Amino acid sequence: MVIKIIYIGNTKNNLNGIYQDYTSRIKNIKKTIGLKDIIFKEIKNSNKKNIREIKEEESIKLLNQRTNESLNILLDRKGKKIDSIKFSNLFYEQSLINKNINFFIGGSNGLKEEYHKDFDKIISFGDLTWPHKMFKIMLLEQIYRSITIINKHPYHK
Amino acid sequence: MVIKIIYIGNTKNNLNGIYQDYTSRIKNIKKTIGLKDIIFKEIKNSNKKNIREIKEEESIKLLNQRTNESLNILLDRKGKKIDSIKFSNLFYEQSLINKNINFFIGGSNGLKEEYHKDFDKIISFGDLTWPHKMFKIMLLEQIYRSITIINKHPYHK
Repeated sequence: MVIKIIYIGNTKNNLNGIYQDYTSRIKNIKKTIGLKDIIFKEIKNSNKKNIREIKEEESIKLLNQRTNESLNILLDRKGKKIDSIKFSNLFYEQSLINKNINFFIGGSNGLKEEYHKDFDKIISFGDLTWPHKMFKIMLLEQIYRSITIINKHPYHK
Repeated sequence: MVIKIIYIGNTKNNLNGIYQDYTSRIKNIKKTIGLKDIIFKEIKNSNKKNIREIKEEESIKLLNQRTNESLNILLDRKGKKIDSIKFSNLFYEQSLINKNINFFIGGSNGLKEEYHKDFDKIISFGDLTWPHKMFKIMLLEQIYRSITIINKHPYHK
C-alpha cells in the first residue's frame, strides 16, 4: 500500500518539526501494515480571480489525480464525520487487499459540490476550519494513530 | 478578558515552534478584543492505578479550577460540535461583557460524565482522538482564528 496526500496549496514551510516527527514515526512502523510509502503531492492554487472559476479549476485538477487501483478519499468538512477507530478500519481494510489510498485536500474555497460524488469516500474531521499546514499534520497524526490502533500499540490508548 | 487553558498533563516539550508562533500571534492582536492575557495551567496527572479512580481525581482537580466570574468550558469529544464561526461568537460575547474564559482539557481517560453538568458549556472539536500536545495547538489555532473573525481579518477566509 502507498498513501498519497494530494492537496491544493502553495506551502513553502511545510517541513517544520512536528511534520518531520510524524513522517519519521510513520516510516518506522509502516511495514507492520504493509505501507510502502507516504507521498505528498502539491497541486498549485488556481490563479483565477472568480471564486466559482477557482473552485472549478481546483476541483478538476484534484479529480485528475485519482487513480483506479486506489481508494480516493476527499477530506471535506461536509463529509461523513469519523472517529479514530473508524479511520483506522479504512487502513486495515485497504492493507488486507493491498490497495493504495489517495487523500485529497481542497483549497481554501473547497471543491465544487457537484464533484463530491466522483470520490470513493468523503470524510470530515469535524465542523471547524483549519489552516492547510495544520490540517496536513492532523491527517498525519490520524494516519500514525491508525497504524498504532491496528498494531495494538499503546500510543492510541 | 483573560483566557486560561487548564489541562491534565505532564507536558515536557510544549514549547515547540508552532506553539510559540500561535501564542505570539495571539498576543499581537489580543488587544483588539480586550484580551489581556492567555495563560496555560498544567494540573498533574493522577498517580492512581484504577481508571475509575484516575477519572474521579482528575475530574475533581479540574472542577476546583473553575472560577465564578468566568465562562467555564470543558473541551470533550462528547460535547456539542461547533464550527469556527460559533466558536468565535463565544469570544465576542465574552468580550462584550468583559468576562474571562476558562478552557478545561481532561486527561487521556477523560472526565467522569456525571461531572460534565458542572461546566457552563461542553464543546467538541469532533469525534477524532488527538494527543494532548496537538490538541492544545488546535485550541490556540481556533482562539487565534476567532479573534481574526471578530476583527474581519483576512486570515479566516
